[in-house]
Amino acid sequence: MPGSLENLIEALRCLPSVGPKSAQRMAYYLLQRERPGAQRLVDALTAALSRIRHCQRCNTFTEDECCERCSSAKRDPSLLCVVEMPVDLNMMEQTHAFNGLYYVLMGRLSPLDGIGPKELKLERLLERACDGAVKEVIMATNFTNEGEATAHYLSDLLHTRGIKVSRMARGLPVGGELEFTDAGTIAQAFYERRDY
Amino acid sequence: MPGSLENLIEALRCLPSVGPKSAQRMAYYLLQRERPGAQRLVDALTAALSRIRHCQRCNTFTEDECCERCSSAKRDPSLLCVVEMPVDLNMMEQTHAFNGLYYVLMGRLSPLDGIGPKELKLERLLERACDGAVKEVIMATNFTNEGEATAHYLSDLLHTRGIKVSRMARGLPVGGELEFTDAGTIAQAFYERRDY
Repeated sequence: MPGSLENLIEALRCLPSVGPKSAQRMAYYLLQRERPGAQRLVDALTAALSRIRHCQRCNTFTEDECCERCSSAKRDPSLLCVVEMPVDLNMMEQTHAFNGLYYVLMGRLSPLDGIGPKELKLERLLERACDGAVKEVIMATNFTNEGEATAHYLSDLLHTRGIKVSRMARGLPVGGELEFTDAGTIAQAFYERRDY
Repeated sequence: MPGSLENLIEALRCLPSVGPKSAQRMAYYLLQRERPGAQRLVDALTAALSRIRHCQRCNTFTEDECCERCSSAKRDPSLLCVVEMPVDLNMMEQTHAFNGLYYVLMGRLSPLDGIGPKELKLERLLERACDGAVKEVIMATNFTNEGEATAHYLSDLLHTRGIKVSRMARGLPVGGELEFTDAGTIAQAFYERRDY
């Protein structure tokens, strides 16, 4: 196999869930049938790597100093939603259910990986939350152990500063059936049941 | 979403079996956690696109005029194996069962897509097979309708030039069980049974 083909197969493995077999398939596919697409991919990756940075205010991906959302007058500055990653912000936005602003942690507390409050720069979030405009902080970190711990830790910090904190609801998914739902989720949905 | 991120997601869709959801996941993953890997991918793709071309003799991918295999004195020039694509050649090589030379068609006869003998430049293969050194041409095109038609058509052409032609055997896969094999394959394995 030519060296540059071997290198390409190796390099394609940086993509998530791409093992040696898929990487080989992708490399051959690109060279055999998609050379224009491969060139477009090179250009798009190069542009994204050089242009995309983090919003100074909310940390999400943007090409500007401050992202469109943070600069917009149409968003409600009294609600601040805290998410782990830009992709989570994107999922939230797709619901069209939230019109406030965001703060992206770019991670979660994870003592085993050496990621504590300092590494996540939680001080910056506290400053942001105490700017006077924010009335409620909504914790939308993941419902994993680490996401839960992060939400818990942060809500303690915010409470001591007198800020109202809420957490996304846990329960059954829309369209979910009890029969196919795990016991933990059913138990949470039971504990957190709402008056009808 | 920033424009360059949208473009990246769109560009990633040129990869085989990558839809909008996976493309989004890949783009966020690369920007969030694999910027060095993304840069390596840009470099590897750029190098492969500029360096990889087709061997003058067998059509496979190579960085040189003539690929290592075709220039090697260790390969048996009396056997010529015809495959559809470079990836097929690669699969054959991984078996270590064949020590002859190859010819890569870069396609298959496919009248519905307007690919006939002229588009596949079959004349070139005939010239190659009639160079005096080749004693047997082994058809290793796929066992699809189009691959079978290509093998059949080519073997007719080669027979009229007095060249021995053979075809890869059909039958059950190694480790295959009758219970889980399709009827067509079992029928072929039955017709082509060998004396024991």
